[in-house]
Amino acid sequence: MTDAARLQDARVAIVGLGLMGGSLAAALLQSRACQRVVGVARREETVRQALEMGAIDEGTCNLEKGVAEAEIVVLATPVRTILRLIRDIGPSLPPGCLLTDVGSTKQRVMEQMQLLPPLVQPVGGHPMCGKESAGLSAADAGLFAGATYVLTPLERTSGDALALAAELARAVDARPLLLGPSRHDLLAAAASHLPYLLSVGLVAAAECVQDDAVWQMAASGFRDTSRLAASDETMMLDILLTNRSALSRTLSHFQRQLGEIARLLDEDDEAGLRATVTTAALRRRRLFQ
Amino acid sequence: MTDAARLQDARVAIVGLGLMGGSLAAALLQSRACQRVVGVARREETVRQALEMGAIDEGTCNLEKGVAEAEIVVLATPVRTILRLIRDIGPSLPPGCLLTDVGSTKQRVMEQMQLLPPLVQPVGGHPMCGKESAGLSAADAGLFAGATYVLTPLERTSGDALALAAELARAVDARPLLLGPSRHDLLAAAASHLPYLLSVGLVAAAECVQDDAVWQMAASGFRDTSRLAASDETMMLDILLTNRSALSRTLSHFQRQLGEIARLLDEDDEAGLRATVTTAALRRRRLFQ
Repeated sequence: MTDAARLQDARVAIVGLGLMGGSLAAALLQSRACQRVVGVARREETVRQALEMGAIDEGTCNLEKGVAEAEIVVLATPVRTILRLIRDIGPSLPPGCLLTDVGSTKQRVMEQMQLLPPLVQPVGGHPMCGKESAGLSAADAGLFAGATYVLTPLERTSGDALALAAELARAVDARPLLLGPSRHDLLAAAASHLPYLLSVGLVAAAECVQDDAVWQMAASGFRDTSRLAASDETMMLDILLTNRSALSRTLSHFQRQLGEIARLLDEDDEAGLRATVTTAALRRRRLFQ
Repeated sequence: MTDAARLQDARVAIVGLGLMGGSLAAALLQSRACQRVVGVARREETVRQALEMGAIDEGTCNLEKGVAEAEIVVLATPVRTILRLIRDIGPSLPPGCLLTDVGSTKQRVMEQMQLLPPLVQPVGGHPMCGKESAGLSAADAGLFAGATYVLTPLERTSGDALALAAELARAVDARPLLLGPSRHDLLAAAASHLPYLLSVGLVAAAECVQDDAVWQMAASGFRDTSRLAASDETMMLDILLTNRSALSRTLSHFQRQLGEIARLLDEDDEAGLRATVTTAALRRRRLFQ
């Protein structure tokens, strides 16, 4: 690491100013946790908007220039763009620079980070928070408050770099959680990507009824269960396509569980159904009081 | 009908003072839409609590006494209890009395209502609103505001009785929607009972991962998609078991949709996946702006 291993002295470059990048920038700026927040976006208009919102100290559309003097670079784009950015900017990063990301899958990201020049310090990141609305206009400095923030270091990552990444997470009121990339991807599949697919499937199943009155019947239960289906498609596609094997395992678990529920219903097995729904109810109530 | 065919002159007896009955009582009392709200509960303690909350004008644990002079009786218990109550109180209902309910399935309820004494006026009801918290303490006079309130009259039901039921729905700020019982049950399966089963299956699938860190990863997406799993088990079991055939059809729709998504993922079919998730996203965004 360079001398600036402390967050408060760091220039933090955030690449991608959508919901996550914009929220992270705003949270860092508001908490005055770092020395300077630099935003990098594809479009001038986005940079201008971020400056107007007070989410960044300065901004640019020039990626190389944006990361040139940064002690911390955070990639906050869809996952497959993150993979490309890691490859592209590796050579431009200052020695000792911490490179992290906020992508929702970590195995592919960490494989790519493993190929970074030796002096770059890679730590994968995944803050467990979000909204179904995408883009900078939905950004919110409070988005990370209380959220679990997964960090996935590599063997080559220095203790200082990992500590700095954890400091960044805590600076936005999140709680760092260290996980290996493949364990992360399986847990994220169950806790986040499966719920998304169920939301999509629920909306599709309601279409199958072919009766428009079904939408008038959709109340708060349908609203909440289908909320994730409104998520940004490009972001979600990248997640799904970079987490296929963990998702496939998790989908099998789910399909087996739902198949068992369908069997209990077919067989009018009240005791079996009661046991199944009670177990889920107890767990859910314990989880979110 | 008796002369008191107008809601403002009616004595309304609500049988069952849980979330739905308690909320309906409170909403009617607050809007002063009817002459008197009578609460009927199994336990004295519940009657006392409802009186203290100002949700009812008077209360009793004596079912016959509670409904004896009512112009409107609303059954607000789990569905299988509703079926039993219809059978039991039929003979005690005053001539011309409107008997309605707030149960989430309607075919079985209407079959039972068809057997009522000829002078009773049956109209099934299902307000499309709720909460995952059960019981009188969760009752809320604003619960029905803006909600679709399904009404399922029988052929024998008079126009006046149906108009009175619609007036009751509008008095609590809900929007009446006339449907036949079997159409209702299919739509409710897709819009409400399927989301519940998906929530239960999601929690069960997350257990299958057998890694407690999965619960730390559960953020707002998991929270919302699993919310219905915390619903009252007894209420939900009655719903599931009285809507088995519609649920079975709806489950098949869903399983086919999810199977198709799993296939697209397995085959790495990006274009197919994008089409599927985009269709769902557009529908969901149109539905809840």
